[in-house]
Amino acid sequence: MPLEQATVHVEDRGFQFADGVYEAIRTYGGKPFALDEHLARLNRSLEGIKLTPPLSVAQWTEIVYEAIRRGGFAETVVYIQVTRGVAPRHRRFPKNAQPTVVMTVRECPPASDAPLEHTARIITVDDFRWSLCHLKTVALLASVLAYQQAKEAGADDAVFVEPDGTVMESTAGNLFVIKDGKVKTPPLGNKLLAGITREKFIEAARSLGIPCAEAPVTRNELFAADEVCLTSTTVELMPVIEIDGRPIGNGKAGPVTAAMFHQFHKLYAGV
Amino acid sequence: MPLEQATVHVEDRGFQFADGVYEAIRTYGGKPFALDEHLARLNRSLEGIKLTPPLSVAQWTEIVYEAIRRGGFAETVVYIQVTRGVAPRHRRFPKNAQPTVVMTVRECPPASDAPLEHTARIITVDDFRWSLCHLKTVALLASVLAYQQAKEAGADDAVFVEPDGTVMESTAGNLFVIKDGKVKTPPLGNKLLAGITREKFIEAARSLGIPCAEAPVTRNELFAADEVCLTSTTVELMPVIEIDGRPIGNGKAGPVTAAMFHQFHKLYAGV
Repeated sequence: MPLEQATVHVEDRGFQFADGVYEAIRTYGGKPFALDEHLARLNRSLEGIKLTPPLSVAQWTEIVYEAIRRGGFAETVVYIQVTRGVAPRHRRFPKNAQPTVVMTVRECPPASDAPLEHTARIITVDDFRWSLCHLKTVALLASVLAYQQAKEAGADDAVFVEPDGTVMESTAGNLFVIKDGKVKTPPLGNKLLAGITREKFIEAARSLGIPCAEAPVTRNELFAADEVCLTSTTVELMPVIEIDGRPIGNGKAGPVTAAMFHQFHKLYAGV
Repeated sequence: MPLEQATVHVEDRGFQFADGVYEAIRTYGGKPFALDEHLARLNRSLEGIKLTPPLSVAQWTEIVYEAIRRGGFAETVVYIQVTRGVAPRHRRFPKNAQPTVVMTVRECPPASDAPLEHTARIITVDDFRWSLCHLKTVALLASVLAYQQAKEAGADDAVFVEPDGTVMESTAGNLFVIKDGKVKTPPLGNKLLAGITREKFIEAARSLGIPCAEAPVTRNELFAADEVCLTSTTVELMPVIEIDGRPIGNGKAGPVTAAMFHQFHKLYAGV
């Protein structure tokens, strides 16, 4: 149906309790990219909130392809959201509710090298989120507020800093730092999302012979980095040129960032 | 309209980002209880997420009364939810979205002394919520999951314990402990909601000459307490008779709890 006609009930637990999870999948060449990984993560998120998957991987795959076909775009972003369904408002799990499944498709800009031209200024903020950031839930208000804080500071995004001084991720992307030709990204844990694009950029770097470690990154290491970038499904890769007002690199995507980006596209995006 | 017909758009930011706040107001004798306090807190929550109040206090008051009238119940619970509105999905604040306002009414059981018969077993859980628990937002998934954890442990609710060993509140209520005839409740801060019922029970205790301090409560103090209870708008007061499997009191509401409860009803509920 047209997006403007798509509604959910006001007592949907997604609306009243943030009791749901989601995924966003993009296409390259019209085909959903890393669909199996996205669906596996969807199942991990569902398991993390104790919600039985409403569809099998085969069923999801079928409707994702069908949604892409019906959308008719050159490239598509498919958004999937699953909530615990509709029930009279109470925080307890409802006994007989059917999960709500929402899927939307919208046009995705075609893959190109242009994104490297789009650079970002970021700020660091103390991590005030909950402890289950590895689950892709719709309890996203902390990220919304941190993003707004960045905007009000004249920046484009915020990265979350833990009490021990390590940095985790931005409000919607994973973080990579490059120093002396070596790449590092924070290790998986409960304070960051296991980004699928993150995984692919690690693979892209290693396939070029560039060392890429999954190891803690401190806020101070950010400032001292030669290059910093953020990755996500929809943005792919965004070079960071300023952090808390301090310049990183020379105001453009650095050479390692660019090499990783081109390799990522060569390996996965068919560009 | 009938509740079953009430819907919001799938791209409502309440549904996709938990980008909204709420209040629940009950009536005593058909009149909304502590409405001004609830509306003041609603405005604090809205301000906390940087959302301009869509209605004035006078306007809210008018529609709350109108909703109670239209519901036609002997006693009513009015639920209000305000979100940042509908916009194409992106974590940035939308420029021109109108806030979504949802108000539901449902019947509330009449005020009586019966609740003291309903006692609770609770568990303690490490606080894995975010840092803005003083805002009454719909980012409630942590409370949903902690409540479920309590249920699976054979208990009725969970209270959140901070890394320093202090306890804050339950998944939907404030906490009171009584020891040697003195009452204590955790002080206001960013890890608990400024409960309106909490405030009224403090007043009720003090009006009886019972000392009531707003001061940190440790997990160990819970176990050593003579009486423990939880308070909230809809439950009013729930005596706790067991914590992490350890008995509190003699399995019934203790004398101070009962005195506070009766005084609360005498002062506010007209019973």
